[in-house]
Amino acid sequence: MMRDERKVKIIDVKESILEDNDKDADLLRQELKNEGIFYVNIMSSPGSGKTTTLLQLLPRLAKEAPCGVLEADIDSDVDALTIAGAGYPSVQVHTGGMCHLDADMSRQGLRELAAELWPAEEKKPAIVFLENVGNLVCPAEFDTGAQLDLVILSVPEGDDKPLKYPLVFQKADAVIVNKIDALEVFDFDLKKFRANVAERGPAPVFAVSAATGEGMDELASWLLAQYREWRNA
Amino acid sequence: MMRDERKVKIIDVKESILEDNDKDADLLRQELKNEGIFYVNIMSSPGSGKTTTLLQLLPRLAKEAPCGVLEADIDSDVDALTIAGAGYPSVQVHTGGMCHLDADMSRQGLRELAAELWPAEEKKPAIVFLENVGNLVCPAEFDTGAQLDLVILSVPEGDDKPLKYPLVFQKADAVIVNKIDALEVFDFDLKKFRANVAERGPAPVFAVSAATGEGMDELASWLLAQYREWRNA
Repeated sequence: MMRDERKVKIIDVKESILEDNDKDADLLRQELKNEGIFYVNIMSSPGSGKTTTLLQLLPRLAKEAPCGVLEADIDSDVDALTIAGAGYPSVQVHTGGMCHLDADMSRQGLRELAAELWPAEEKKPAIVFLENVGNLVCPAEFDTGAQLDLVILSVPEGDDKPLKYPLVFQKADAVIVNKIDALEVFDFDLKKFRANVAERGPAPVFAVSAATGEGMDELASWLLAQYREWRNA
Repeated sequence: MMRDERKVKIIDVKESILEDNDKDADLLRQELKNEGIFYVNIMSSPGSGKTTTLLQLLPRLAKEAPCGVLEADIDSDVDALTIAGAGYPSVQVHTGGMCHLDADMSRQGLRELAAELWPAEEKKPAIVFLENVGNLVCPAEFDTGAQLDLVILSVPEGDDKPLKYPLVFQKADAVIVNKIDALEVFDFDLKKFRANVAERGPAPVFAVSAATGEGMDELASWLLAQYREWRNA
């Protein structure tokens, strides 16, 4: 099998025994600030394009800071292999059936990723993405300790999703509409979607295509601006 | 607002206090057999086309038996309104943030739907679909008491999903690949998808397009065969 040639580290994370995840997430945010990891949580339905969006963003961001990815899944290592194949440190986190990651599960994954991100002595500030479990419900309920929460919604899923999954859009720092190259094939009203998102919260909406790269420069610029602000804070 | 003209019943279901959902699901299946309700649970990611698939199936099935739909969502009533607008009894079930329905939540919804399904004295055997919460993880963990579990996966989501969400494909009595009219736009290998499904279990795979109606006659025939078998059992 091909997989033998391209291996990634797979870790089985344990559900946190801490009762107060929100408190632990704040603690993790502080730990990551001290260590120099800008941690970005990406939430979406299965198949809306988290991995392909990352493949577009990573080269744009890596000019400024080393980048890595935590891939969370119930099972399989296909996404971590894809990211590793593109040349970025990646660790596959298996949740053992759980539909979300909490702060301590993030911490377990980040510990493993740090070794690959910083093989040398010097720890240069880095940007680490979490590809959360594909799910618009549960991940929204758990603070992962990330600095930013991004939500990806792809055109084929429909413009009504902020009505049905309010919390994830309410928590989003930015909303990414992916697969806009397929806008003509599907009945998706971008204006209506923007209005539906605005009902949930003030998150900016970026319209992109991970297939063609459209809109990715703008999204990367916004992310870098957030990263710089965090570094200087 | 338009909504005032087309109303549907919305019920907020309570999480079951029963400890043994599996046992309760078996009990519900027996209750439904006695009442004459063939109950079909549909699971999928958000936006993979549960409602539009139902709009194709309902007229095909309604020739043989009265049909109704339970629409489960965290919030909103858009799907129930769509089904009701097409002329079929529909009840919107709000889960209060929960990512799944269990057997007793099904029972609460079915009780409300029965009144619309059977306004007269005579209770003719009926087919009732549950549009579960859009989520490939949690719904798979709870037996809803349905006779059949269907999984819909749409082409834009990718052919690798049975690797990442094993349980839902393992539990499926049939897998429906929707949006095959968009096969040319997306990198989706139907043969590979069939192989990935086969690794999880023996469920037949139906390739359909809810937009064009392609493949719907075959799927409806299969469902009717299951329904007849259940009636005669």
